[in-house]
Amino acid sequence: MSLLVVGSVAFDALQTPFGSTDRTIGGAATYFALAASLLAPVRLVAVVGDDFTAKEEAVFHGRKVDLAGLERAPGKSFFWSGKYSDDLRTRQTLATELNVFATFQPKLPEAYRDSRYVFLGNIDPMLQRHVLEQMRHRPALVALDTMNYWIAGTPQELAKTLRLIDALLINDEEACQLAGEHNLLRAAKRIFSMGPKAVVIKRGEYGAMLFHRDAILTVPAYPLEKVYDPTGAGDSFAGGFMGHLARHKKIDHSSLRRAMVYGSVLGSFAVEKLGVDRLRMLTRREVEARARALVRMTSIHL
Amino acid sequence: MSLLVVGSVAFDALQTPFGSTDRTIGGAATYFALAASLLAPVRLVAVVGDDFTAKEEAVFHGRKVDLAGLERAPGKSFFWSGKYSDDLRTRQTLATELNVFATFQPKLPEAYRDSRYVFLGNIDPMLQRHVLEQMRHRPALVALDTMNYWIAGTPQELAKTLRLIDALLINDEEACQLAGEHNLLRAAKRIFSMGPKAVVIKRGEYGAMLFHRDAILTVPAYPLEKVYDPTGAGDSFAGGFMGHLARHKKIDHSSLRRAMVYGSVLGSFAVEKLGVDRLRMLTRREVEARARALVRMTSIHL
Repeated sequence: MSLLVVGSVAFDALQTPFGSTDRTIGGAATYFALAASLLAPVRLVAVVGDDFTAKEEAVFHGRKVDLAGLERAPGKSFFWSGKYSDDLRTRQTLATELNVFATFQPKLPEAYRDSRYVFLGNIDPMLQRHVLEQMRHRPALVALDTMNYWIAGTPQELAKTLRLIDALLINDEEACQLAGEHNLLRAAKRIFSMGPKAVVIKRGEYGAMLFHRDAILTVPAYPLEKVYDPTGAGDSFAGGFMGHLARHKKIDHSSLRRAMVYGSVLGSFAVEKLGVDRLRMLTRREVEARARALVRMTSIHL
Repeated sequence: MSLLVVGSVAFDALQTPFGSTDRTIGGAATYFALAASLLAPVRLVAVVGDDFTAKEEAVFHGRKVDLAGLERAPGKSFFWSGKYSDDLRTRQTLATELNVFATFQPKLPEAYRDSRYVFLGNIDPMLQRHVLEQMRHRPALVALDTMNYWIAGTPQELAKTLRLIDALLINDEEACQLAGEHNLLRAAKRIFSMGPKAVVIKRGEYGAMLFHRDAILTVPAYPLEKVYDPTGAGDSFAGGFMGHLARHKKIDHSSLRRAMVYGSVLGSFAVEKLGVDRLRMLTRREVEARARALVRMTSIHL
């Protein structure tokens, strides 16, 4: 089923304890699309500069990623540079150059306007609404990511957008900041009152929690002996989550629970190599095997 | 089935954002015994001073806690004082007065020497071995807790003790310190090579992980809207874990998995009120209800 993502396609410079790169393809929408497209076809809306050539575009080759919505603008692509600590638990942003992303106005190709599953990546909440205004019908599910920059900087715009969406995917710190609560359970309830009917709180190496109606589901992060580069883990989680829902065309409670497993699994693959290197090589068979392993890891019969 | 715990019975002074006390009954063995005794009879070995009177002993009344091994020595009981940060994520130790605990030499009453399940609380690893030497037969399961003080201070003594035990229950930081590894999976494997066949890594609000043979199990912490006082959560986890095993007299892989649920459940109750107040009032029925709720929270069918 049609899955639309709107977000950033970028160049990243990454320094991890295990290796580094001056320039690799990154951006939330890139990680999302590579992860989700293992499960369902993806329609991508983003903007890149003229430094993003056919060679770079090849990152999506062999995947069902529709690039009709990948706009090219004169100038340079969004660039982000970050450095991780030795234990990978913290990172320092060394540079953020918005470039063509600074004036990004998402335009949906005509063929995208019937998308049933929509993921609004972390961009200005006003632009996130602008995407929804272009849809021909109300999608089956609209999910949203955001960050501290918008939570603190444009709370009223964000509030307007939150009223229009179904699911919020957010990390634990941002959930607490958005809700003004230390406690995740109270934070999720507060966020329910802002609009979303489902709240997914991502907790990095500790996994993720789904709050949906009265139910809570926890999924662990898949334990890895070696984490190489945490970049894009959250975006890949979102890709696995949304990819599963779009594949099965169902958004009942059981589907949301299963989607959490695929989120966690795709997030775990993303961190196994530098940048998108692991996601590019990943197969559906590997995803399914790890999904089963993750479920075994949480399965208990009293 | 007979469950023996050796550890501290103490007085605590606690400061939390929600309340405080100058003097309440604490100590790892106290939390363990109150938690475990909801599931199986407990035999307690500890030392208290002459300030621990019949009035204090009443904390165990109504529970199947055998106090024949609670030694009374002249002087004051172990005293600990701590203060929690506003988000309860960190705590500061304000005072540690060992008092009669400084010269504690655990002596097992004759009737305790056939105990089948043994929990060696966080004391000098030499004393932990001394307990095992007093057993008439090899117990079915010996589990051990330890802390950074012994890991850094008496590594060789600790190594000798680790070779004699079946399961290590330890928090994540201490597991990494003991193994010399940032990564929990590699840390658990390293600890396997030191002796234990099962490693339980406690992660506070993030739950716990069981490493046993080739399998990993994760259990979440039960999400609470209000955490009042984290003191004793880990000890109560150990009590729930061991209590379940002793109750069912089984230590196969499935039992260990179920024991993790009871560990998490007892840990979650412990933090709901100040000190041991919640554990004292707790009923078996409440424990079972929360165990079922926790299992629902992790249950996924792909």
